[in-house]
Amino acid sequence: MSQRRQITGFSNPTVKFLRSLREKKHRRASGKFLAEGLRLLTDARASGHLPEMLIMASGREPHPLLGALEADVLAAGGEVLEMGPDLLSKVTGKDNPQAVAGVFAEFDTSLTTLDRSSAKIWLVAQALRDPGNLGTMLRTGDAVGAGGLILIDDCADPFSVEAVRASMGAVFTQRITQVRWDEFLPWLRGGPGQLVAASLRDAVPYRAASYAAPCFLLIGNESRGLPEHYEAACDLRVTMPMKGRADSLNAAVAAAVLAYEALAALG
Amino acid sequence: MSQRRQITGFSNPTVKFLRSLREKKHRRASGKFLAEGLRLLTDARASGHLPEMLIMASGREPHPLLGALEADVLAAGGEVLEMGPDLLSKVTGKDNPQAVAGVFAEFDTSLTTLDRSSAKIWLVAQALRDPGNLGTMLRTGDAVGAGGLILIDDCADPFSVEAVRASMGAVFTQRITQVRWDEFLPWLRGGPGQLVAASLRDAVPYRAASYAAPCFLLIGNESRGLPEHYEAACDLRVTMPMKGRADSLNAAVAAAVLAYEALAALG
Repeated sequence: MSQRRQITGFSNPTVKFLRSLREKKHRRASGKFLAEGLRLLTDARASGHLPEMLIMASGREPHPLLGALEADVLAAGGEVLEMGPDLLSKVTGKDNPQAVAGVFAEFDTSLTTLDRSSAKIWLVAQALRDPGNLGTMLRTGDAVGAGGLILIDDCADPFSVEAVRASMGAVFTQRITQVRWDEFLPWLRGGPGQLVAASLRDAVPYRAASYAAPCFLLIGNESRGLPEHYEAACDLRVTMPMKGRADSLNAAVAAAVLAYEALAALG
Repeated sequence: MSQRRQITGFSNPTVKFLRSLREKKHRRASGKFLAEGLRLLTDARASGHLPEMLIMASGREPHPLLGALEADVLAAGGEVLEMGPDLLSKVTGKDNPQAVAGVFAEFDTSLTTLDRSSAKIWLVAQALRDPGNLGTMLRTGDAVGAGGLILIDDCADPFSVEAVRASMGAVFTQRITQVRWDEFLPWLRGGPGQLVAASLRDAVPYRAASYAAPCFLLIGNESRGLPEHYEAACDLRVTMPMKGRADSLNAAVAAAVLAYEALAALG
């Protein structure tokens, strides 16, 4: 039942619900997540994703993209909520009366619906703890034409506000899969697929390696890197030059340098 | 005068000073910045940078690296401050009694002391607003053997806690320069140097471009990219493939993909 509602009061249950979506346990319980910003919501719409709820300030200035979004949300049976700037900033965490936000249903992240043949490159993150890194990997994945991001072990939440923001809309275009290593590896070996580890150990220079599609690029935890037996299970271990004092790159940077190399090789 | 002091009480002036270093205006006024974490402080020491003050919890467990650091700080005439876990978490913003932090004098960031011939690659950031992106660029710069990071126009503060943390110690190894565009360009043209823009406009594919040392890789603001007349002033405009819906990469990612390409070309 589509509707437009005016929300007032900090104790309003809808306001409480919206604020709760900043926490993972509430996202999981409700199966919903928040995305913020007109650009992000417009990108989502262009990718076929409409929010179930659209949130904005009462008396906000009209904007053609926002008007189109409102119309689509209402037509699809969703809700448009208007609230005062104070309340809005409690929901969005930002002191910006032009802010808009949307509540989306989380996507299916099961392995069973992943079609490996739909792309030449896939990014795989193992125990990545920084939601900004996950979002940046989604954004890079979109840029290189990857199929999606596969999250192994205990990663940050790709539906967190920070990850969604850093993805710049790619959370709506990249397939996101969450799976345990001991489920992922048998699935991978059940079909074509080259598993490539970004490694600090004995490894081939990343520019001299032979990449093969579908190519799964595996990036390990920010502090510890990949567990040794995960690396050992890979078809290829590649390393990037490290000319300075440090022995590693930022995880999202390593993923991107490798993904662009694979793109150059696989086209 | 070297000393070891026990600090108690939230209103202690030293505690107030340390907390003030989370804000840019206080860093500028004092010329000091905070770096946190034993690993970061150890990296700093290995690069010849000792903190003027070393801060840790009273009764912290001994650690060989920390012991060596303490000895060096005291020998160099610095201070070692011990405080209760509550106070320490107020200073570091973290609830970790193992935390250590150091206060460092900011470095000379003037253009006049920059030696362009000391490296083949230099990263240049224009109006970058995210301190994490700056720190990540410093880290990447270290990895590709760049000489340093040149900050043009109104960038985030490279000495902020977030930038220092994201740099993973590279803030101590990479030369940092802050300069206006109208000072930078004449300086650049006063000697050898290729200025390369990461561009979305009419540009050469980044893998087909001819890079020349010293190569200055210019990355623009996260939202707006580079001003058009900055791009026009560059010797080369390069672009990276964008296969998806988005039209740009994360700024630190774009810098890294380009820097590794330049490294492959220039050795």
